[in-house]
Amino acid sequence: MHSISSPAVMHPLSLSASSRFLSHKLLIPSSFFSNFKTTHQGFHTNFTKVPTLIRNCTSPPVSAKPSSQIRWNRTKKSEPDKKLQALRELFSRPGIGIDAYIIPSQDAHQSEFIAECYMRRAYISGFTGSAGTVVVTKEKAALWTDGRYFLQAEKQLNSNWILMRAGNPGVPTTSEWLNDVLAPGAKVGVDPFLFSFDAAEELKEAIAKKNHKLVYLYNPNLVDEIWKGSRPMPPNKPIRVHELKYAGVDVASKLSFLRSELLDTCSSAIIVSMLDEIAWLLNLRGSDVPHSPVMYAYLIVEVDGAKLFVDNSKVTPEVLNHLENAGVELKPYDTILSEVESLAAKGHFEIHVSDRKGNLHNGSNDQSWGPSGVYRASPISLAKAVKNHAELEGMRNSHLRDAAALAQFWVWLEEEVDKEVKLTEVDVADKLLEFRSKQAGFIDTSFDTISGSGANGAIIHYKPEPESCSVVDPKKLFLLDSGAQYVDGTTDITRTVHFGKPTAREKECFTRVLQGHIALDQAVFPENTPGFVLDAFARSSLWKIGLDYRHGTGHGVGAALNVHEGPQSISFRYGNITPLQKGMIVSNEPGYYEDHAFGIRIENLLCVKEVDTPNRYGGIEYLGFEKLTYVPIQTKLVDLSLLSVAEVDWLNNYHAQVWEKVSPLLDGSASEWLWNNTRPLLRVICTYNISCW
Amino acid sequence: MHSISSPAVMHPLSLSASSRFLSHKLLIPSSFFSNFKTTHQGFHTNFTKVPTLIRNCTSPPVSAKPSSQIRWNRTKKSEPDKKLQALRELFSRPGIGIDAYIIPSQDAHQSEFIAECYMRRAYISGFTGSAGTVVVTKEKAALWTDGRYFLQAEKQLNSNWILMRAGNPGVPTTSEWLNDVLAPGAKVGVDPFLFSFDAAEELKEAIAKKNHKLVYLYNPNLVDEIWKGSRPMPPNKPIRVHELKYAGVDVASKLSFLRSELLDTCSSAIIVSMLDEIAWLLNLRGSDVPHSPVMYAYLIVEVDGAKLFVDNSKVTPEVLNHLENAGVELKPYDTILSEVESLAAKGHFEIHVSDRKGNLHNGSNDQSWGPSGVYRASPISLAKAVKNHAELEGMRNSHLRDAAALAQFWVWLEEEVDKEVKLTEVDVADKLLEFRSKQAGFIDTSFDTISGSGANGAIIHYKPEPESCSVVDPKKLFLLDSGAQYVDGTTDITRTVHFGKPTAREKECFTRVLQGHIALDQAVFPENTPGFVLDAFARSSLWKIGLDYRHGTGHGVGAALNVHEGPQSISFRYGNITPLQKGMIVSNEPGYYEDHAFGIRIENLLCVKEVDTPNRYGGIEYLGFEKLTYVPIQTKLVDLSLLSVAEVDWLNNYHAQVWEKVSPLLDGSASEWLWNNTRPLLRVICTYNISCW
Repeated sequence: MHSISSPAVMHPLSLSASSRFLSHKLLIPSSFFSNFKTTHQGFHTNFTKVPTLIRNCTSPPVSAKPSSQIRWNRTKKSEPDKKLQALRELFSRPGIGIDAYIIPSQDAHQSEFIAECYMRRAYISGFTGSAGTVVVTKEKAALWTDGRYFLQAEKQLNSNWILMRAGNPGVPTTSEWLNDVLAPGAKVGVDPFLFSFDAAEELKEAIAKKNHKLVYLYNPNLVDEIWKGSRPMPPNKPIRVHELKYAGVDVASKLSFLRSELLDTCSSAIIVSMLDEIAWLLNLRGSDVPHSPVMYAYLIVEVDGAKLFVDNSKVTPEVLNHLENAGVELKPYDTILSEVESLAAKGHFEIHVSDRKGNLHNGSNDQSWGPSGVYRASPISLAKAVKNHAELEGMRNSHLRDAAALAQFWVWLEEEVDKEVKLTEVDVADKLLEFRSKQAGFIDTSFDTISGSGANGAIIHYKPEPESCSVVDPKKLFLLDSGAQYVDGTTDITRTVHFGKPTAREKECFTRVLQGHIALDQAVFPENTPGFVLDAFARSSLWKIGLDYRHGTGHGVGAALNVHEGPQSISFRYGNITPLQKGMIVSNEPGYYEDHAFGIRIENLLCVKEVDTPNRYGGIEYLGFEKLTYVPIQTKLVDLSLLSVAEVDWLNNYHAQVWEKVSPLLDGSASEWLWNNTRPLLRVICTYNISCW
Repeated sequence: MHSISSPAVMHPLSLSASSRFLSHKLLIPSSFFSNFKTTHQGFHTNFTKVPTLIRNCTSPPVSAKPSSQIRWNRTKKSEPDKKLQALRELFSRPGIGIDAYIIPSQDAHQSEFIAECYMRRAYISGFTGSAGTVVVTKEKAALWTDGRYFLQAEKQLNSNWILMRAGNPGVPTTSEWLNDVLAPGAKVGVDPFLFSFDAAEELKEAIAKKNHKLVYLYNPNLVDEIWKGSRPMPPNKPIRVHELKYAGVDVASKLSFLRSELLDTCSSAIIVSMLDEIAWLLNLRGSDVPHSPVMYAYLIVEVDGAKLFVDNSKVTPEVLNHLENAGVELKPYDTILSEVESLAAKGHFEIHVSDRKGNLHNGSNDQSWGPSGVYRASPISLAKAVKNHAELEGMRNSHLRDAAALAQFWVWLEEEVDKEVKLTEVDVADKLLEFRSKQAGFIDTSFDTISGSGANGAIIHYKPEPESCSVVDPKKLFLLDSGAQYVDGTTDITRTVHFGKPTAREKECFTRVLQGHIALDQAVFPENTPGFVLDAFARSSLWKIGLDYRHGTGHGVGAALNVHEGPQSISFRYGNITPLQKGMIVSNEPGYYEDHAFGIRIENLLCVKEVDTPNRYGGIEYLGFEKLTYVPIQTKLVDLSLLSVAEVDWLNNYHAQVWEKVSPLLDGSASEWLWNNTRPLLRVICTYNISCW
């Protein structure tokens, strides 16, 4: 699956003491709340302390729901008028006193998938798309979203709302609009937990042009205040221990590594707010949000201790024991703020950021951010991205089981289509979930399945809805991008197929996407190469005939964790200079999308490995990729005349490996399907006739 | 030819008036002297005014000298002791008062090739390499140079000098050394004309750590002061008009374009110090320095006038007439400073720079340089880089004549080697110059010929010296990188050949370099693609076996101008985001260098052209390359088993074109040689045997 918002690169803000003593420095991720400078100067919190409760729990629960059910719930009609009215009434309450309030999509952890109780933007506006920002003033209410969601937002917003079609000519940004509609010197409220430091600073600067002030309203969040009784409870599914045989490294070792990083940067503590980083560090997994096996929590690691801030109702005796063994103390989730306050009280802090855009920066301007800035990716993000042997084994094994489920699914689908059964895109996604659920260790889908027939395949982030989706058309290309969370690994795969006779155009486009896929798969490159250097390999064949695709080529993937993770990526956006390293996992997913006609994407997951090259120029390692995904690529879509001998060899070798690795997991019609779909395409006999030399 | 110092990207400093009035703003290139802020606050100049003298001159003179002659002159022994002593005596002279003096290699125009009278660093130190910086304190004298020149510097420096092997572990930078050896609060003198604004600012900041001050000494340059009588006269070769049939656009149109750029940026004037920009703008060419057909001059273009600051002895009646027609006034070269002073006196100025490293910057940090900064490449640099129809025709034609000379040269060389004649690398370079001199419109070599046999070929910027160079060994690879200045164009070509039987290793490396060359040559890419995106195409085949090369793949080339020009480049250094544009010329020169064994490079010049792709995804243009260079690539060095069918086709098609385009210019043995060396390599007959599908 491709992510439009590229995987977040974690940049710890360094709260460095002017005295430079160890005890006066913290590492705090920039994704943590935005106004730390203010917070430690004495604000008040009145979070309810949740009593420590320990519950019993057994094996990992299957948390996936059929798409049809989830999606129906999310598109309930809302009543925005009364909500807006209630929200505006809060504006003038004592201690608040604002003229506008901004409500982003995010939760406090910058999560990609968030729990319903934190879907504040969806609640207030009625708009349920994954991306959008709301700004409410005393008179107006506006929602910004991008091109993927214009139609949906038009349907879901009532007449009190202004739809801001972000990216369209003449459409202002949120700050431009605020500067336009508010009288100078207004107060704009935000919940600082929902803004990264960088985003808040940018906003502050932008609205300062009209003398507006940014006001940080810690508690309550104004939407929560009006949501109240009808607000879903925070998720309280039990946490489970991620077994050492899958994690590969125990918690003590990970904490020890992190502490050595703290010492290296003369820091005394790090505050971790990214949920996948907490899950990875503590070898824990949760079920608080769809698709990502994480739990809502904060973690503070100090040189001499660690505290996990989490709802105790999720903590099983096994987890408690696991945490005690690792020397991790439990604290209620809501006490994070007071804890950070007390840490901060130990010294005077300055905040330095690495880059406003969240990208690493190797230019010469670093100094403009001050001499004590910390200019590096989160040490956890990088350590998590480089998989160990056990994590890679889990990824390999789960991919083979996933491939078996996909083989069973594809033979079923081809048979249904042959029988002329009418299946919608959602039916197909649900059936795929059914096949995956039967695989050992299955937990959830790793994202909403993108199941697009014909023109729907051209919508890069298409999400079929039961009430509006298409029937799978046997005469059109069908694009299926899906993935799963297993106890031992995370998968993400896209295949594009045709059930009938593809056109020459479809074949040419498919073949060129395949050539890009092969070129990236086969790339060998020196260590320290950032992913963007390889991006053009995946586009080159399309470029030759004037085609391209408007998304990156690869994102990082967690091991039994988030399907999108940083810090690495393979993209034409050359701001991310994180080198690809041995053990990192990336997707390889070039595509081509013809508006109103069809979409093509071919996606495997790859693991960066060392290549045993006959030379090592520069005395360095040369790297390449190991395939994790083993599912046939439909050969009838290949235009043979375009492929080189080496490309045909690649396809034949890949299919031979698919058969060898996946067939032992299959029998009956699925095994037969796999056999038929992994036969070598052709044999090439080349006669060289040397004419003159 | 590859340039280690990547082509300078011109970044005008904006001297913007606080009042923002048109008349109070200038564009001034950052390469112009470093301390403009100081200069306009009232310093004094005492340049001698050179009387205006007009000389007669006819057709363009051939300015090239055989390598043997030039090089001998440059390596004369010097007497550094007395010079250092004389220099140090100046330190305490009234009005000077410094503790150290820095002498860079540069002239006042940041030229790649400079006139002897400006080779101050070579004069003071005796070290004649192209790159190096001297720092002299009251007690010590040190020279910094890079790995190419360590051996040469060891030989040329006497015992009073410390050789600083830049890049070696533990070797300090000039500022680190100054901070180390000088007592705090020292004064460090520089000639501001020889430092770019950015370089001076960096130096100032670095030495401020020890409270040292940078002192700008305008006149005299201290080295000139001690050089005096023995100093060569400034070059005074006549300037010639670059005919409109070659320039394509007349001076009036170019000035009009530049003035519209001034108006666009609300500037009243631009000060041009880059010699190739002046030559291009005014359709003039000079012979003041080797290899580049430029003349020492400054140019100020105002909205209502233009002034050329140049030694009048170089100005022929034809040139005078040409300048008068274009409304360009003549001024003595030495009056530039007072002219800038008087321009500056019109208002209060602030200097804003685009980037300390001289690279364009599209990040979010731009604002840190202040709200009125001008963040773009020099408008002249970009306009000059995008060649017009006439310039391209000149480039095409001169490349064919150059190819004819090369064919004559190669057949001569092969015959000599066959006859077992002992030829040194310098002999070979001199003979090549002889063949080129016979071609119509030949003026000069475009850089010092790199003629390297065996291990010498592995030294990327090898420059054979008559007294030390090798004999061309028939049993080893021979690398020849050379180019010429013609009246209508500039060439730059590298070929690598073997006179006997190459080893399998040599063939494999050569073939992979060739594959990189072909991959870049054949690339198609969307408009707005920076060159670095294509760099990996040229390395990919080498990377597969763990090889690489430590230089960029392509540099810009002027049309009958400098062989290295910006702003574009094709390099792994991804700081240069200048998009490749239709009409730009770049070199395509991947290589591989095996230390102490051999060097391989295959270089053609390419012109960026629009490709008529069957699609135009995104509604944009897709670009590719047209070849300018037509000289055979030695096929006996090709390992056929590595090449794809498409790559063999490329080579055969290229050679067919070489024959078609160059053979009409040849007869006799050269024609026969061309015929033999352009025969198709082989015919490939592929039988596809579809086995299962």
